Amino acid sequence: MRDVAIIGTGMTKFGELWDKSLHEIFVEAALKAIDDSGVERIDSMYIGNLSGGLFVGQEHLASLIPDYLGVCPIPATRVESACSSGALALKQAFLEVASGFSDIVLAGGVEKMTDVPTDVATYGLAAAADREYEAFQGITFPGLYALIARRHMYEYGTTREQLAMVAVKNHKNGAKNPHAQFPFEITIEQVLNSTLVADPLRLLDCSPITDGAAAVIVCPAEMAKEYTDKPIKIIGVGHATDTIALHGRNDITTLKATVEAGKRAYTMAGIKPEDIDLAEVHDCFTIAEICAMEDLGFAKKGEGGKAVEEGLTEIDGKIPINPSGGLKSKGHPVGATGIAQVVEVVTQLRGKAGERQVKDAKIGLTHNLGGSGGSVIVHILEVM
Amino acid sequence: MRDVAIIGTGMTKFGELWDKSLHEIFVEAALKAIDDSGVERIDSMYIGNLSGGLFVGQEHLASLIPDYLGVCPIPATRVESACSSGALALKQAFLEVASGFSDIVLAGGVEKMTDVPTDVATYGLAAAADREYEAFQGITFPGLYALIARRHMYEYGTTREQLAMVAVKNHKNGAKNPHAQFPFEITIEQVLNSTLVADPLRLLDCSPITDGAAAVIVCPAEMAKEYTDKPIKIIGVGHATDTIALHGRNDITTLKATVEAGKRAYTMAGIKPEDIDLAEVHDCFTIAEICAMEDLGFAKKGEGGKAVEEGLTEIDGKIPINPSGGLKSKGHPVGATGIAQVVEVVTQLRGKAGERQVKDAKIGLTHNLGGSGGSVIVHILEVM
Repeated sequence: MRDVAIIGTGMTKFGELWDKSLHEIFVEAALKAIDDSGVERIDSMYIGNLSGGLFVGQEHLASLIPDYLGVCPIPATRVESACSSGALALKQAFLEVASGFSDIVLAGGVEKMTDVPTDVATYGLAAAADREYEAFQGITFPGLYALIARRHMYEYGTTREQLAMVAVKNHKNGAKNPHAQFPFEITIEQVLNSTLVADPLRLLDCSPITDGAAAVIVCPAEMAKEYTDKPIKIIGVGHATDTIALHGRNDITTLKATVEAGKRAYTMAGIKPEDIDLAEVHDCFTIAEICAMEDLGFAKKGEGGKAVEEGLTEIDGKIPINPSGGLKSKGHPVGATGIAQVVEVVTQLRGKAGERQVKDAKIGLTHNLGGSGGSVIVHILEVM
Repeated sequence: MRDVAIIGTGMTKFGELWDKSLHEIFVEAALKAIDDSGVERIDSMYIGNLSGGLFVGQEHLASLIPDYLGVCPIPATRVESACSSGALALKQAFLEVASGFSDIVLAGGVEKMTDVPTDVATYGLAAAADREYEAFQGITFPGLYALIARRHMYEYGTTREQLAMVAVKNHKNGAKNPHAQFPFEITIEQVLNSTLVADPLRLLDCSPITDGAAAVIVCPAEMAKEYTDKPIKIIGVGHATDTIALHGRNDITTLKATVEAGKRAYTMAGIKPEDIDLAEVHDCFTIAEICAMEDLGFAKKGEGGKAVEEGLTEIDGKIPINPSGGLKSKGHPVGATGIAQVVEVVTQLRGKAGERQVKDAKIGLTHNLGGSGGSVIVHILEVM
């Protein structure tokens, strides 16, 4: 296998992009990544997308996108694993370059979610759960994560305030991110007084519905210095699955796919959790960030909430988590999220994150999760 | 890159499988492929599927399928490129094994299309066209292929009867295939007198709406003999894209993505069209088989219809095409089709095709196409 590096990144503003279509936002992000890397051709591309079908009636992005990007006849592949579709695009691009089949590959993600009413978007998102045994019975993702949160509070004494602190911290970071959908700070009181969605989760515990796209360019590590002074090497790739339905699991506070994907990525990279300088984790709900911290080894089991309360996950903390603002503040255009996490880590490792820069960042991790933990992909990136 | 071989295959009966769900039919095909190959583990899997979202409200097959197959936590990836999703699953499995990242990988495809009324299925299928510029304006796939057929008749003198002969030949082959949805013969008169769908195409020029799944197991060629006496090597992989909308092309009778994907596959395999002993091509409509024959080099431009009329594409002809019965007679569960084509070619190369066996078959080709030719994947397989 050849080593693979990221040599360019691009993303759109995340938000309600009502004047742009799905393919327009993907093309915008892709052109930025192409510009940033300075490549003059791409050999192949991957597109992460949850459901163009349910959100805008459009599948076959593997033809639509290269067409509107003007790169036909190059091969293009759309990949989907619910909310982890973005990271999956990068994993597949990694494999294609590692194999020697192609040299310069674009990995992007996109979702256009705000063209439909919220109930239609909720139906689309629920397609990522077990439709027959979960969604048809009336439980969608806020309800599933509420079950996880309630159990975590019961088992480990995690407090309602600690959940709120995750959102407060992520908004504090997101306020410094020009791409964020909600670039403003919030308070614990605002979280605790926001509308109840699924007890104990309130509106400000939940990531929003978002339009957006992000893209990166990868190539063999040995070619990377031709394009940039600061290539970022992909040193770990971990991908794992778990039961799609929450009720299939012995312990709903441990997301086994995160544990397994993390283990695989750490093993491949030959490092430990304590070697990570910053992480972008999948905070679709505040409780999800706490579980991810524990399952990835950044906090002991049950102590994730405490770590947040102690400030360990702040930008200047021991293990900065979601310096981008996370899904909560930056927004969550499902298929784009995994790539946007990678864009943030690359930006941090290049030392270009401005006001939200993590000091001396050399190794970063991304954690992208599908559904209620049915699929997880972890990447570990390092300055070359 | 490591060489890759297919060591086992499995598929369901194609048809209206109303008593089985999407995941049940995939699992059935996957277990058959696992049994056939004799592997005791799989390291990773790929699932080709056009639109679980629009047909049954279910995305995230990359978690659903490994869960119901009982193979979590292995990584799983759903890929989509409209009707070429199946072949895309095999291509990605090929890359993963070629790269050295995994050894034993399952590539499957599935579609459950008959759980919804025909107009809903048509809406789902139209998601593979350019929704904004084609489907929303009222043209769906029968109309698009009717334009191609009419132009082909005008430019090259292809006759209405020659189109019918494609369907007659494929039903003759499919009548010998126990997996076929419509395993019976038809006559030219029946085609010509069937309901007009989109002039000049009639009902019996069109492939049906189908439920079904198919799967194959791949591994490094050097390991293949541990599992089977007759491994089939993947010697050519070609993948290309074209404009998603038909109106974007200079010449609608030549499908450039087929030409390019064919060229790439022939180059990689180091062979020419005349070296191919049999081919499974994407006959979603009768005209599509004629175009594919020409674009892949099995007939001169404009002479595809004549070649069919002369019997060259019969099982005992110069270049047998669609010995399985093709999409027309075997059925077209979109995401499964590309893998089912591979299952047929492997069966033929193993000499196990019974009554429809092509004599002395050593090298076979599969041609799987998405939309009206916006994406095409060609594989070339050879007895090891």
